[in-house]
Amino acid sequence: MMKLVEQALTGDRRALARLITLVENNGAEAHEALSTLYPHTGRAHIVGVTGAPGTGKSTLVNELAKAYRAQGATVGIVAVDPTSPFSGGALLGDRVRMRDLFGDPGVFIRSMASRGSLGGLARATADVVQVLDAVGYDVILVETVGAGQSEVEIARTAHTTLVVEAPGLGDEVQALKAGVLEIADILVVNKADREGAIHTVRALQMMLDLGQPQVTMHHGQAMEVAGLVGLADDGWKPPICQTVATSGQGVPELMDCIADHRAYLRESGEWERRERLRAAAQLENLLRERLIAHLLDQIGQERLNEIIARVVRREVDPHSAVEALLRQVDSP
Amino acid sequence: MMKLVEQALTGDRRALARLITLVENNGAEAHEALSTLYPHTGRAHIVGVTGAPGTGKSTLVNELAKAYRAQGATVGIVAVDPTSPFSGGALLGDRVRMRDLFGDPGVFIRSMASRGSLGGLARATADVVQVLDAVGYDVILVETVGAGQSEVEIARTAHTTLVVEAPGLGDEVQALKAGVLEIADILVVNKADREGAIHTVRALQMMLDLGQPQVTMHHGQAMEVAGLVGLADDGWKPPICQTVATSGQGVPELMDCIADHRAYLRESGEWERRERLRAAAQLENLLRERLIAHLLDQIGQERLNEIIARVVRREVDPHSAVEALLRQVDSP
Repeated sequence: MMKLVEQALTGDRRALARLITLVENNGAEAHEALSTLYPHTGRAHIVGVTGAPGTGKSTLVNELAKAYRAQGATVGIVAVDPTSPFSGGALLGDRVRMRDLFGDPGVFIRSMASRGSLGGLARATADVVQVLDAVGYDVILVETVGAGQSEVEIARTAHTTLVVEAPGLGDEVQALKAGVLEIADILVVNKADREGAIHTVRALQMMLDLGQPQVTMHHGQAMEVAGLVGLADDGWKPPICQTVATSGQGVPELMDCIADHRAYLRESGEWERRERLRAAAQLENLLRERLIAHLLDQIGQERLNEIIARVVRREVDPHSAVEALLRQVDSP
Repeated sequence: MMKLVEQALTGDRRALARLITLVENNGAEAHEALSTLYPHTGRAHIVGVTGAPGTGKSTLVNELAKAYRAQGATVGIVAVDPTSPFSGGALLGDRVRMRDLFGDPGVFIRSMASRGSLGGLARATADVVQVLDAVGYDVILVETVGAGQSEVEIARTAHTTLVVEAPGLGDEVQALKAGVLEIADILVVNKADREGAIHTVRALQMMLDLGQPQVTMHHGQAMEVAGLVGLADDGWKPPICQTVATSGQGVPELMDCIADHRAYLRESGEWERRERLRAAAQLENLLRERLIAHLLDQIGQERLNEIIARVVRREVDPHSAVEALLRQVDSP
């Protein structure tokens, strides 16, 4: 395994692919590998790209990858599709990508399928991003389907988060309802050549002008304990970029916006704060998974089945059942 | 508080609303109330309604509520919108609903806003559903934005899950990518009067004919430990219903499908299995939240900040940091 790490660090793609699989599977060897790789991390610009299905996110991610390549930067792509446990979605996306980017040694693409649980997916995504960071990819694009809170969580651990909208996806209220605006560093209206694009831009602009919404959302408990919440950055006003990903229109301007945001992060100290947020989120997620696994292991199948049966028979309510279980178990 | 419970059980709507707020806020009184109410639960038919933004879910839920009322059944509606921490989305949805259902004492509507964390939202949703079940609502419609894994988790704890699609939301691949098919008991193609509806129906039919996908998705660890995974029901083939929610077209047929599914659940023993799944998911979620809260409390702000700083400085990797933290803390 340590040989695999060495090979991956020297640019061996096959070793990298095997290493990522190892890391995804999350064993003792994976932790050792990540521990060795970790000091090499911290150099990549991690860019989250999120948006509802049908906004053209994947095409946009491809165009961004090509544009970064043209600038000489290497690009890692992590496509997270937590709602697709059967391979269809992810594989198809890969095949489309392949056509444009296949054979370019400066691009590495990985699709993340379901990892059995939500925490598992967030864990695996963070770990894979760290591997790509460690082996030297300059930009890492993390693509998520952004209509769910979990995907938002994954996206917001990036340095820069793009929220992609498109005209004509239901009425405008839906754009607001999708409600990922407050995590956007850059708003992208893709398919900007379509009818209604200007309405989408205006609706978003109006939202932004109404003032930044109170940032009250979905902070992890660890972030709250660590006092990382409430320090939202006021120095950056999310720009709205219009693109037509299928033709590449607007992509250079979007690249400029991303570069501007990176410069802002570096100058304002926000980069450092986001690194802390990311570490806090990752620690909390790992702790959660470990604690529940340890506890369920202690409880055991028989006792768990018994308590589930009692809850189903309405002999005990779930909250009281949890109290009783917690009183019975040992320290992790 | 016990008076509130009593009043709610006798049908006092104002007491019910206050009780639900109490339960949402999750204190010691909330647990006592839930414990008292719990023996009264288990009678409602819990129907999850999920689908991407723009499919017309909310309108469909209203039509279903009206149809149930016409049959004499009482209806609770829980609208979960985890991506909208600022109130806009949920409130607007409520106002639209109000127009049709306001003043009907047989309907109770509650929108669930963000509860600070993902686990918090799932916890609050489960608790509110239990309150509505306990006070006697016959049918509880739980509406979620179904493009994310967390929302899917919430929906799948229902007895019957409707997955709503609509024509023209990006290409057909998106429908597959949305990938919530495997949790669907009933597929609904809403906006069936629109161009392309027949293509959406055919694409879904094709997916179903390709055979049920392997049910490998997103099981909680508790479900796995309890051996509840892998017992998927083979006796039910999800029907595809076409509706035009805005005109009510197709809603009677959809009601028949839901009634058929309920009868199937009762006859096949699947109802009991779903109750066990639901209890397992709820226990696991509560345990997770309690464990992490206890742990973070023990660690304390200072030590947590310190370890986060060390991770950010690359002095320790996240997995090793978690190991170290777990070695230092006491039993819950």
